[in-house]
Amino acid sequence: MIKTTYPPSILQYIPFFFVIWSDDLLTLSEIAVVKKIIDDDQNLSKKDRETLNSWLNTAQPPLDTEIKSWQRAISNSGIKLVEGDNHPLTSFSKKLISQNGSEHVFNEDLSAIETNLGIQPNHYHHLFEVEVVLEKTSNFYDPKEIDQIFKGTNHREIDEFREALSNSIFSWEIIKNKENFREKVLTQVQYLAKAGYGAMAYPEAYGGTGNMPLYATIFENLMYVDGSLTVKFGVQFGLFGGSIQKLGTKKHHDRYLTAIGEAKLLGCFAMTETGHGSNVRGIKTTATYNKEEDNITIHTPGKNDNKEYIGNALHGTMASVFAQLIVDGKNHGVHAILVPLRDSENRLMPGVRIEDNGYKLGLNGVDNGKIWFDQVKVPRANLLNKYGDIKSDGSYYSDIKNPNKRFFTMLGTLVGGRICVAKGALSGAKMSLAIAVKYALQRRQFNDNLKIQEDLIMDYPSHQLRLTPAIAKSYVYQITLDSLMKIYSDDSITDKRKIETQVAGLKAIITWFANETIQECREACGGKGYLLENRIADLKGDVDIFTTFEGDNTVLLQLAAKGIMSDFNTEFNSAGFSAVFKLLGTQISDKLVTINPIYANKVDKEHLYNPKFHQHAFDYRTRRLTYSAAMRIRDYIKKGVPTYQAFLKVQTHLIALGKAYSCELAYNTYLQFTETIEDKKNQQLFQKLGCLFALSEIREDASWYLEQGYLGGTKSKAIRQRVERLSTEFRPHIEVLVDGFGIPDHCLTAPISR
Amino acid sequence: MIKTTYPPSILQYIPFFFVIWSDDLLTLSEIAVVKKIIDDDQNLSKKDRETLNSWLNTAQPPLDTEIKSWQRAISNSGIKLVEGDNHPLTSFSKKLISQNGSEHVFNEDLSAIETNLGIQPNHYHHLFEVEVVLEKTSNFYDPKEIDQIFKGTNHREIDEFREALSNSIFSWEIIKNKENFREKVLTQVQYLAKAGYGAMAYPEAYGGTGNMPLYATIFENLMYVDGSLTVKFGVQFGLFGGSIQKLGTKKHHDRYLTAIGEAKLLGCFAMTETGHGSNVRGIKTTATYNKEEDNITIHTPGKNDNKEYIGNALHGTMASVFAQLIVDGKNHGVHAILVPLRDSENRLMPGVRIEDNGYKLGLNGVDNGKIWFDQVKVPRANLLNKYGDIKSDGSYYSDIKNPNKRFFTMLGTLVGGRICVAKGALSGAKMSLAIAVKYALQRRQFNDNLKIQEDLIMDYPSHQLRLTPAIAKSYVYQITLDSLMKIYSDDSITDKRKIETQVAGLKAIITWFANETIQECREACGGKGYLLENRIADLKGDVDIFTTFEGDNTVLLQLAAKGIMSDFNTEFNSAGFSAVFKLLGTQISDKLVTINPIYANKVDKEHLYNPKFHQHAFDYRTRRLTYSAAMRIRDYIKKGVPTYQAFLKVQTHLIALGKAYSCELAYNTYLQFTETIEDKKNQQLFQKLGCLFALSEIREDASWYLEQGYLGGTKSKAIRQRVERLSTEFRPHIEVLVDGFGIPDHCLTAPISR
Repeated sequence: MIKTTYPPSILQYIPFFFVIWSDDLLTLSEIAVVKKIIDDDQNLSKKDRETLNSWLNTAQPPLDTEIKSWQRAISNSGIKLVEGDNHPLTSFSKKLISQNGSEHVFNEDLSAIETNLGIQPNHYHHLFEVEVVLEKTSNFYDPKEIDQIFKGTNHREIDEFREALSNSIFSWEIIKNKENFREKVLTQVQYLAKAGYGAMAYPEAYGGTGNMPLYATIFENLMYVDGSLTVKFGVQFGLFGGSIQKLGTKKHHDRYLTAIGEAKLLGCFAMTETGHGSNVRGIKTTATYNKEEDNITIHTPGKNDNKEYIGNALHGTMASVFAQLIVDGKNHGVHAILVPLRDSENRLMPGVRIEDNGYKLGLNGVDNGKIWFDQVKVPRANLLNKYGDIKSDGSYYSDIKNPNKRFFTMLGTLVGGRICVAKGALSGAKMSLAIAVKYALQRRQFNDNLKIQEDLIMDYPSHQLRLTPAIAKSYVYQITLDSLMKIYSDDSITDKRKIETQVAGLKAIITWFANETIQECREACGGKGYLLENRIADLKGDVDIFTTFEGDNTVLLQLAAKGIMSDFNTEFNSAGFSAVFKLLGTQISDKLVTINPIYANKVDKEHLYNPKFHQHAFDYRTRRLTYSAAMRIRDYIKKGVPTYQAFLKVQTHLIALGKAYSCELAYNTYLQFTETIEDKKNQQLFQKLGCLFALSEIREDASWYLEQGYLGGTKSKAIRQRVERLSTEFRPHIEVLVDGFGIPDHCLTAPISR
Repeated sequence: MIKTTYPPSILQYIPFFFVIWSDDLLTLSEIAVVKKIIDDDQNLSKKDRETLNSWLNTAQPPLDTEIKSWQRAISNSGIKLVEGDNHPLTSFSKKLISQNGSEHVFNEDLSAIETNLGIQPNHYHHLFEVEVVLEKTSNFYDPKEIDQIFKGTNHREIDEFREALSNSIFSWEIIKNKENFREKVLTQVQYLAKAGYGAMAYPEAYGGTGNMPLYATIFENLMYVDGSLTVKFGVQFGLFGGSIQKLGTKKHHDRYLTAIGEAKLLGCFAMTETGHGSNVRGIKTTATYNKEEDNITIHTPGKNDNKEYIGNALHGTMASVFAQLIVDGKNHGVHAILVPLRDSENRLMPGVRIEDNGYKLGLNGVDNGKIWFDQVKVPRANLLNKYGDIKSDGSYYSDIKNPNKRFFTMLGTLVGGRICVAKGALSGAKMSLAIAVKYALQRRQFNDNLKIQEDLIMDYPSHQLRLTPAIAKSYVYQITLDSLMKIYSDDSITDKRKIETQVAGLKAIITWFANETIQECREACGGKGYLLENRIADLKGDVDIFTTFEGDNTVLLQLAAKGIMSDFNTEFNSAGFSAVFKLLGTQISDKLVTINPIYANKVDKEHLYNPKFHQHAFDYRTRRLTYSAAMRIRDYIKKGVPTYQAFLKVQTHLIALGKAYSCELAYNTYLQFTETIEDKKNQQLFQKLGCLFALSEIREDASWYLEQGYLGGTKSKAIRQRVERLSTEFRPHIEVLVDGFGIPDHCLTAPISR
C-alpha cells in the first residue's frame, strides 16, 4: 500500500527523490551522497530513516506507483518553482513543507544533493510548473576570471589590444567586391602595423618586443574582426617577415625587418606551387647561381610550376621565394630567396608575371595570386642564408651537411605559423559558439500545451549535446595551443623536432574541430545562422581553408604519425625505419596491459570522471595504435614490400594514430595546466570541462575501444550517458563559459547575439 | 630451405601468391577460389599441387622469407607490368614464364583470381616497376548505361532538358552583387518557364504534363547550373504554384496556375516567421474573417511575427500566406490565403512592408525577404479552400473535423518539396564528387624515390576511402528518392502519412550527407577546391541551408521517430502515445532475437557481402531503437513524468532512431530496385555499390552494434577492412561511376575537372 501523503520529515526529500528516480540519476557514488545526508539528518525518526533508505536501493527501486504518488504530492502543492533561486529544488522543498504549516526544521543539507548530483532545471523542466525567471544564466562563475586564466601573463597587453579593436576601422561590414575588400583589409593591416602590433614577435631592435606568444594571441583575436584581416596580417608579419627573421641573417634583418613590421615593405611567402603543395620538397622553381655574374636566376620551368595561392601577391613588392638552389650544377634542395616583385611605382619587375587567383569560398579580402618567374636575376645576398649559403668564392656551404635534415630544419622554423593557424581556426569556433549560445538563450520554439511560453532551444538536450562538448574542447585546445606556443618560443629548446610533430597533429585536429563546430553552430542558429550579418557564415567560409593551408590535414597527421613512430629521433622520411620499428615493437608491447573485464565495465561516476581513467584510455590508444602500425609495417617489409608501399598500405592507420596522439597530448597539457589554477572554484570548473572533453573523445572513438575490449558495452553506454548529463549540468553556466572566451563585445556584432 | 627459383608451373602462380600474402587478402571463400584454380590446373604435377596448396593454409601461412623470395623472383625478372591490360597481373605472369623460354602452357584461368579477389593496381602499386598507362580508368562499365538506369522511363525528356542547359543563358559566371545575380536568375527562371519546364507538374489544362517525378528531376539537374536558380525555380513553381495546386480549388487553378507556370505571375510561399520556423503550428500571423465585409484581414501582430526568408519576396507580386484563420472569433488553425504584394506597376500594396534579407552564406541569387502585413484585406475567395473553407454564410467548414489532422493533411501535401530538397542536395554532392574524382585522376603528389612520376592522389587509400563510399551512398540515395517521388506522385495512394515520415527522415540524412560530402570534396581538392571557379565552393554555400529549410533536420528526425513509434497510425503529436507504446513494446520485443556469438563474429566475405546480413543488421537496429525508446518513454510516463517531458528526455535517442530507420529504408528500396536491373553486369555493379553503402553505414555506427553485442570486435574490424578494400576495388571504375551520374558536360565547367 503506497501512501499519498507524507510527513514533513519525509516530504522535504520527495522532490529530490522524484527527480532522481524519474531520471535514473543514481550510481554508487551518488547514492552515497544522498545516504550521507539522510544519515546526518538529526530530525528523522528511525522509521523515516528506514523509509528513505529503502528508496535508495537500486537493486529494488521504488515502484512506479510510489514515484507517481510523489509526483502528485508535488503537483498538487501548487507551489511554483523559481529557476532563478540558487538551489531551486531546495527552495521548492522548503516551501513544500512550510506550506503545510509544519514546524519541522528543514534540512538545509539537501542542497548538497542538487550540487553533487548536478541536478539542473533540465531535469525537472516540465515536471513542475516553473515560473520563468529573467536570468538566462547563473552567475556562479565569473567570465572575467575565466578570461584572466586564459590570458595569463600577457593580460594587460591583450586587454589593450582588444580595446584597440573598437576603433571604427575594424567595424564589420559586407564588402562583396574583392578589390574594395582588399583595400580595406590593407588599410587595417597598415593601421595595426603603425600601432606596433605587426612587429610584436620581432626583436626590439626592429620595433618589436620579441614576444611571439603575444603575437599569436593578437593573431587569434583578429579573427573576431575578420578572417581576411587575420590571414593578411599573418602573411605579412608572420610568413613573409617570419621567413626573413628565421631563415635570413643580420644583413637581411637590418635591411628589411623594420620596414616589414611597419608594413612599409609588403611581401609574400612564395612556397606553394600549382603542382606542389603538400610535397614542398618536390617544388620545381629553380634558383640557379651564376658564378660569373655573382647572382641568382629565379625561374619557373613548367606549366604547373608557378607559385599559387600566394597572399599579398597583388599588394606585395617582394617575395620570399622557395626554390631548388642549384650551385655549380648541383641541386642543394629547397632554399628561400628574396625576389623583388614590383618597383617603387608598383610596376611589375621584368620577368615577373602575377595573376589574381580570383574569388574564393572565403578570405576574399586577401589578395591571393599566381606568380611566374622568367629568368629573374637577383643578387647573391638575397639568399636567406642562415642554414645554407653561397660563399663569395661561389661555393655552397651549410652547417647542416645532410640535405634532408637541412630541409626539415628550415621548414621547422616556420612551425609557429601552424600554431597560429590552429589558433585562428579555434577563434572561429569560439566566436560561433558564443553566437549560437546567445541565440539559443533567446530563441524559443515548441512547448507543451500547458505552458504559454515556448521552450528556450538551449533547454533541449539535443541542443546541449550539440554545443557543450564543443565548448569544453575549445577550452582544452586553447590551453594546449598557448602552452605549445610558449615551448616553441623558448629559445633554450633548440631541438624542435618533437614540437613539429605535435603541432602537425594538433593543427589537423583543431582545424577540423573548428570547421565542424562552426557548421554545427550555423545549423543550431537555423535560418538566422545563414545570414551574413550573423557572422557565422563568413567564419565558415574563411576557416574552411585552414584545414588545407600550412599543411593539408591528412598529410600532417601522417607526418605526425611518422614522428611518433620514430620517437622523434629520425628525419621525416619513409626510409630506414626497420631498426626503429623493431626496437619500438619490443618497447611498447612490454607496456601494453591486458584489460580485465571488471575494468572494462566499471561504470561508477568516480571512475568515469577520474582523469586517471581518461589518461589511461588515451595512453592505451596511442600505444596500441603505434604498436600495431609499426608491426604491420614491419610485417610488410619482412615480406619484401618496399617501405614506401608499406607506409601507403597502413595510411588510414597512421591517420588514426596521428589523431589519437594529438588528443592525448591536448588532454595531458590541459590537465597539467589546471593544476596551476589557484582559485579552487575555477580550477574545478576547468577540470570538469576537461572531463567532458575526455569522455566526449572516448565516446567518439568508442567503436575502437570496444573492438579492443578496452570498453565493455555497459561502460560505453555509461560514457555516452555521462556526456549527455555533463552537457546538461553545464546548462546554467553556458553563457558564462562562452563569455569566458573574452571576445570583445564590440566584435560580437551579430544581431542574434545581442 | 626455401627455393629461390621456381619451375614455370609454379612460377606462374607466384605473382598472385605474392600479392595475396603480402596484403593478407585471404578469407575462406577467397581461398576456395584459388584452390579451385589449382585443382583444375591439368598441367600441375602432384608435387606442384601440394606445394601450391601448402601456400593456401592460413593456419600455417608461408614464411616471410618465402614471400620475400617470391618478391625477388618478380623484381629480378625485369618485366614491366602494364596497368592498361585487362588483367594486368595475369599478363605479367604470362610474360614471366615465357621469359624463361619455357614451353609450359600458361593457365589462363589465373585471371579469375584477379577478378574474384578484386585485386587492383593498388594492391601491387610500387611492388612492381609499373609502366604508366594513359587510361586513368577502366572501360569495363559504360557510364551511359548507368545513367540510363537512373533516368528510367523519363530518359528522353531528361536528355532533352540536359541539352537545353547548354544554352548560354545558363553559363556559369561569378556575380557578387546580389541585385545583378538576382536579375540573372530571374531571367533564367523566365526562360525555363517559357520552355514549359516550370509547369511540368501541373495538369495539362494549365500548360503542364502532370509529371511530378520529371519536375523533380528537372529541379535536381538545375543544381548543376546553379543553386540559386534551383531554389528560385522551386519557390516559384513548386512552393508558390504547388500551394495553389494542392491547397486551392478549381477557381484558384483556373485563375492563377497557367500564369504561374509561365512565370508571368511571380509569387512567394510565406510560411516561416522570424519567431516560428520549425513550429509552424505556432505561427502568429492572423487571417481574420470579417463577416460584414465578407473579406479576410491579414495581420502581423508582433515584433517577431513577420514572415522571414521568403524567396521571391523582392520579385513576387503575390504570396500564399500561412496564417491562423479566425472565423467568428474562433481559431481554426493554420490556413493559406493568397495576398497580393505588389500592383501591376510593382509598387507595394497598402499595408504590406517588405525588407531584403540581405547577403547570405549562399543562394545570393535568390531574393529572400521579410514581409509584414498591417491589416491587409483580401477577398474571401483568396482562401485556399481545399481542406477548410468559409462558406457564403460566413461559417467555417472543413471535411476534416479534427484540427490536428487537418493541419497535418495540409502540410502533408507539401511533402514533395522535401523530396526535391533532398534531391537538390544530392546533386550538389554528386557534382562535387565528380569534380573531386576527376581532379584526383590528374593530380599527382609524392612518390617513392625510385620512380620519376609522383602518384595520382586517387591511388592513395585514404583518398579512396574519402570518396568511394560517398559515391556508393549517392547511388543508393538517388534510387531511393526517385522511388519515393514515384510513390508520392501516385494519386491512387491517398494516405500519405507513411511517406511523410519517410521523407522527413530521408531529407535529414541526405542533406547532411550532401554537406559532409561537399566538404570532403573541397578538402580533397586542396587549395583548388577553395577557388570559386572550381564550383565546389558555391555548392558548399548553397547546399548548407538545405539542412534547415523545408524542416530543420534535427526536428525532422524526431518527427520521423514519432511516426515510426506510432506505426504511422496516429497524428504527429506527443499526446496519447501510451497505448501505442504498450502494444508496440510487446510486438517488437517478441521479434527481437538474441545474437549468438558465432554470428556476432562471422567474418567471412560471403557473409559480410550478403545483403541478408545488411538487412538483418539494419532491421535489428531500427527495432531495437524503437523498442528501447518506447520503453524508456513508457517508464517515464508510468512514473508520472508528463508525456512532453518524457519525449524531451529521450530526444537524442529519437534522433538515432530517425537516422536508423531512414538508412534501412534507403537500403531496402535500393536493393529492391537492383532486382529490376536487367543487365547482369550492371546489376552486379549496383549491388556491389549497395554492399559498400551497407558496410559503411554499419561501420559508422559500429559503436552501437558493439555495445549491443550484435557485432564482436573481430567482425567490426573485418567490416572496417572490407570498406577499405571495396573502396580500393572500385578504383579502376571510379571515373565511370561519377560519369554515370549524367552531369551534362557543359555544366562541369570547373577547370580542375576538365
